[in-house]
Amino acid sequence: MKFTDLETPALLLDRHRLNANLARMHDKASAHGVALRPHMKTAKSADIARLATVGQPGGITVSTLKEAAYFIAHGFADITYAVGIAVGKLDRVAALQQDGARVTVLTDNVDVARGIAARAEATGARFDVLIEVDTGDHRAGVAPDSSTLMEIAAILDRAAGIDLRGVLTHAGHSYDCRSIEDLAAVAEAERAGAVLAAERLRAAGMACPVVSVGSTPTAVHARDLSGVSEIRPGVYMFNDVFQASIGACTLADVAVSVLATVTGHHPERGEILIDAGGLALSKDRSTAAGPHDVGYGWVIGPDGTALPELQVVRVSQEHGVVAAAPGAGALPLAALPPGTHIRVLPNHACMTAAAYDCYHVVEGGEVVATWPRINGW
Amino acid sequence: MKFTDLETPALLLDRHRLNANLARMHDKASAHGVALRPHMKTAKSADIARLATVGQPGGITVSTLKEAAYFIAHGFADITYAVGIAVGKLDRVAALQQDGARVTVLTDNVDVARGIAARAEATGARFDVLIEVDTGDHRAGVAPDSSTLMEIAAILDRAAGIDLRGVLTHAGHSYDCRSIEDLAAVAEAERAGAVLAAERLRAAGMACPVVSVGSTPTAVHARDLSGVSEIRPGVYMFNDVFQASIGACTLADVAVSVLATVTGHHPERGEILIDAGGLALSKDRSTAAGPHDVGYGWVIGPDGTALPELQVVRVSQEHGVVAAAPGAGALPLAALPPGTHIRVLPNHACMTAAAYDCYHVVEGGEVVATWPRINGW
Repeated sequence: MKFTDLETPALLLDRHRLNANLARMHDKASAHGVALRPHMKTAKSADIARLATVGQPGGITVSTLKEAAYFIAHGFADITYAVGIAVGKLDRVAALQQDGARVTVLTDNVDVARGIAARAEATGARFDVLIEVDTGDHRAGVAPDSSTLMEIAAILDRAAGIDLRGVLTHAGHSYDCRSIEDLAAVAEAERAGAVLAAERLRAAGMACPVVSVGSTPTAVHARDLSGVSEIRPGVYMFNDVFQASIGACTLADVAVSVLATVTGHHPERGEILIDAGGLALSKDRSTAAGPHDVGYGWVIGPDGTALPELQVVRVSQEHGVVAAAPGAGALPLAALPPGTHIRVLPNHACMTAAAYDCYHVVEGGEVVATWPRINGW
Repeated sequence: MKFTDLETPALLLDRHRLNANLARMHDKASAHGVALRPHMKTAKSADIARLATVGQPGGITVSTLKEAAYFIAHGFADITYAVGIAVGKLDRVAALQQDGARVTVLTDNVDVARGIAARAEATGARFDVLIEVDTGDHRAGVAPDSSTLMEIAAILDRAAGIDLRGVLTHAGHSYDCRSIEDLAAVAEAERAGAVLAAERLRAAGMACPVVSVGSTPTAVHARDLSGVSEIRPGVYMFNDVFQASIGACTLADVAVSVLATVTGHHPERGEILIDAGGLALSKDRSTAAGPHDVGYGWVIGPDGTALPELQVVRVSQEHGVVAAAPGAGALPLAALPPGTHIRVLPNHACMTAAAYDCYHVVEGGEVVATWPRINGW
């Protein structure tokens, strides 16, 4: 099938770009002697997880327990749930582990650590746990040099039924960087903080085999991964306009796009209407903070070719308004009559992909596969 | 089941508030002698559509053809697809109509009108069509006094297989209003523009039985609906913090909320972490433009009671960061230990609900029903 025969809006995945993105990160991990534990929060697809773990140990990262259940059902047995656990979710974790899979959980909280220990003792369940370390993102995690780190570690280390596996950090503040040097510096802070935390645990007699770091920008630009055991990037599989804007990829590496149809012309306002709006593109505006704001997405031709720069400048639920970027000249109305297909490169692939239940995998102008993805909790 | 036994994040729907919201809009339509054709783009649920059409003719409005198919499968036979049609979607419309349902489409474009006529002629299909009129929103639609209106009408009126049913407008710019008087003025402009367009068609000999207007704020605040045949509000069923901020409802009318769990404390930053982030809440920031920005949502207690004002100030995919609103005093950390449930009232119910596949309908502290909803295209 030609992808222009798809109902719109539809989510396209360029197979060549996906494969190139996967290969690049695989090679990066290999070059540094670390495992790649890809974060499946972006793709949420078993087909893509299989491709992303080729030549790797096979462990993956997830952002919800629904993802964990889905990937276990598709044969993945080593899963890190990289969002702080709530004690009330531990029974579901235990149930997921009943057929032999391991779902490693994390916390940055003394009370939660006590709660995990208590739940293991009360139910006889076993839990693998990582301590989340804050290496500058200031979202979650304890400071690597804090007493809280050692307090949590002591609770987990002495509890029956708990395997304290190590430490995990996510340098989400790499998203605030605006140069490659900045990204490399954040990557080094991420590495150094995680390694410091691990060394403190080891000095206290804990084995700490896992030293887990990762965000796509830091994984791409890290120059040294000494002491790290694994990296956990996710969005690198698809990339997006925001990743390109901070130098984590180029626009030519963006593998996902939304196929849309022109539904109307408003030349009096220099605007074209498309059938992809706030739900089809997401309301993510991450490029707004950077030097090149692309609105709700960067518009390209149906075959992936560039157009004079067009942006989705406004959205409502199912409407997108396309206009020329500032300074980009006139809108090519004659080239885009109603019924024409265009593609939109998203600001943030994780948010955009979440509106769809499948990927239409394209090679040239053909849909060569349809891969389901999951959503929700 | 107690709703606190639900896995989080979860979407709660307060049955009493829903019923009150539905009754209020029903009464408004009755008082003005117009039909209520509820827009199901917000709720996307057959259960809610049934409640919303009690005492009404039974027609509904949808924003996607997937919604149209779903509601037809659930017994709704009179559907308006209120997003400009693409000619490439007409075969799907025709297929949806094969068992007797009617899916009325709309356009604001001369070329599309010709395309609909050509498709009807080529396939023998019948299409009911409305002309979209712009009464000030400047998203889609032709001006009520324009020659384009009459040009489109002439094409549709003389085409075989097409029933030109009338005109439709959506005063989406009511969302920019900041006072009740402003809203009433926009409502009157919406009414007057639609009626003018209809009268021009009638003067040219076309029957034009449908004069369709509607947005929740204008439906709530319209003082005169003379000449209007139907209203199409949607978000009134649930309401949200944004609707409250512009005076279309009060916070006590917001019927949907996201149940979340506290997963961490960061007292050094005055922050609490919850397991509802950008996907669970959406990245809609509509309150940012108004006088009372609530970040990504307004946090209340698990039972719906107010807390000292807390907001979701930052989100990443599955993390929400909760902090006190400016001037609201200290964060009540002791009252919200890890594991505690909170609820988040959304900025924009249509966007937030789209992340979920069901509503947990609550009455008091009990889940009394679970209603599925659909998403996607």
